[in-house]
Amino acid sequence: MTIQQAMQSVENIMFEVVNSDVKTLRDASRHILDAGGKRVRPRLLMLSYSAFGGTDYGYAAPAAAAIELVHTASVVHDDINDHGIVRRGRPSVNALWGRTFALLTGDFLFTKVYELMAPYKDLNIDLAEATVALVEGETLQAAAVKDNNFTREVYMQIIALKTAALFKASASIGAKLAHADEKSIEALGQYGYSVGLAFQIIDDVLDLTADSTQLGKTSGIDLAQGRGYAAAYSSNGHNGSAVAEAVVEEADPMVSIKAKILKGDAINEARVQAKVLAQTAIGCLDILPESQSKRELVELANMVVDRDH
Amino acid sequence: MTIQQAMQSVENIMFEVVNSDVKTLRDASRHILDAGGKRVRPRLLMLSYSAFGGTDYGYAAPAAAAIELVHTASVVHDDINDHGIVRRGRPSVNALWGRTFALLTGDFLFTKVYELMAPYKDLNIDLAEATVALVEGETLQAAAVKDNNFTREVYMQIIALKTAALFKASASIGAKLAHADEKSIEALGQYGYSVGLAFQIIDDVLDLTADSTQLGKTSGIDLAQGRGYAAAYSSNGHNGSAVAEAVVEEADPMVSIKAKILKGDAINEARVQAKVLAQTAIGCLDILPESQSKRELVELANMVVDRDH
Repeated sequence: MTIQQAMQSVENIMFEVVNSDVKTLRDASRHILDAGGKRVRPRLLMLSYSAFGGTDYGYAAPAAAAIELVHTASVVHDDINDHGIVRRGRPSVNALWGRTFALLTGDFLFTKVYELMAPYKDLNIDLAEATVALVEGETLQAAAVKDNNFTREVYMQIIALKTAALFKASASIGAKLAHADEKSIEALGQYGYSVGLAFQIIDDVLDLTADSTQLGKTSGIDLAQGRGYAAAYSSNGHNGSAVAEAVVEEADPMVSIKAKILKGDAINEARVQAKVLAQTAIGCLDILPESQSKRELVELANMVVDRDH
Repeated sequence: MTIQQAMQSVENIMFEVVNSDVKTLRDASRHILDAGGKRVRPRLLMLSYSAFGGTDYGYAAPAAAAIELVHTASVVHDDINDHGIVRRGRPSVNALWGRTFALLTGDFLFTKVYELMAPYKDLNIDLAEATVALVEGETLQAAAVKDNNFTREVYMQIIALKTAALFKASASIGAKLAHADEKSIEALGQYGYSVGLAFQIIDDVLDLTADSTQLGKTSGIDLAQGRGYAAAYSSNGHNGSAVAEAVVEEADPMVSIKAKILKGDAINEARVQAKVLAQTAIGCLDILPESQSKRELVELANMVVDRDH
């Protein structure tokens, strides 16, 4: 099995595990999974596993699927709190099914994580701790917005918790599954952590630059897309009107806060910071022997900062 | 250690595990835990454990705490979906901290469950499956409300998933922790399942009878309580105004639906059904030798149907 095939296996596992008898949970879960996404976390896990000589991709794939489901669940709940109507180029679960079902779909996905993780026994705690960190990060973010206390220091604390912790877990779980030694697990964890920070910084830069240079256009497209999709979906029995409700709610307060943080030369500074983090991450890979998977881990770190979407 | 002391240990574990560095999560979690609740699920687990000869209550207590946290998390999320402003005689997390933080507090509690369960390895899957059932039950309920398709059959399906599954897991996990044999685990699972059904039927009857005979009064008291508490709490930095928002939202649609189901002689029928279920449950305990814990399990089944709150 190649890494590519392993990633297809991760996809299959995710779709299988959300195949609930309860139609709404099944449909809403498939909707968000179908929309794609970068799958960077499970890819990180599989590459880390492979780089330490792991070859039984079928054994590692459910853990990779579990990690992507943590991220997916958080995305579904985020869109409730931020009134997000478009996600991955599609209307959000919140927009199509409404708040109640979006909340329950997120809970469903969060729980399915532990169904997938159960066979790994000792690794459960790693994922639970990373997920707690993610929720803590989201909470700090919401609190910073509410208290208008969004300094750069707070920002770094937030992204460490909400993003870097799960990236770190992805890489270190991959290493653990391949029975790497303590030092190697630690090094890959550090790699994942730095990549996670870089990933989130660039995500926020992209959000912001798309916003400042194309504000009316992007926004307009998003809203029109949301409405259009919703109309299309509602003929299939979905709750399209929720989109209309969602768009009249207040805009994401993060936008103006991010704008404040990244004003002036800050966008370039942020890009530089992300590049430094990616280089730091790549440095952590010295512990690995040369391999195709190691080269792909280097590439992944570079891709994270060079991407334009 | 007595069962009473074991239950105190369960309390301590829950408070310890929610001691996040993130103030809002810590405060909101403590708020809902402090409010009490019947603790019937962890008690069921501890009694089942003890009835099969388990004596290391310190070993079983974290699992019991995990089960109560599943229930607590679902309650916090329920109050978002139902706009619940009073919970356990106190304003809900949703009322005090608002929707965003209530959602994140529920996610936090759901995740802490698996931090607690990690050492139990094989039992993780039992709790994950019961939690999936709970979420599926809540979803079926929301769908039945939305589709106006709330028959008695659908009702039974809902309460089996949203309540009986977790009661079943509580009892069977207790038996498993005491290394009971397959047949005994199955019997205690059946006991828990029947007690869970009876518990939910009586819960709904109590909701309804309080509603039909004291509607204005109870409602009025609840709202006034909510506002009063909120005002008191908001001076401590809480978001009291959320209560005011919550009360203007639509009332729980379940009330009128339950009323339809339980109209005429249906309340008495429901009580009879619950009593039969409690007796069925008690019958499952025949497999146990006589003991104080067995007697308390009998008592628990009777209490569930005889209670008036």
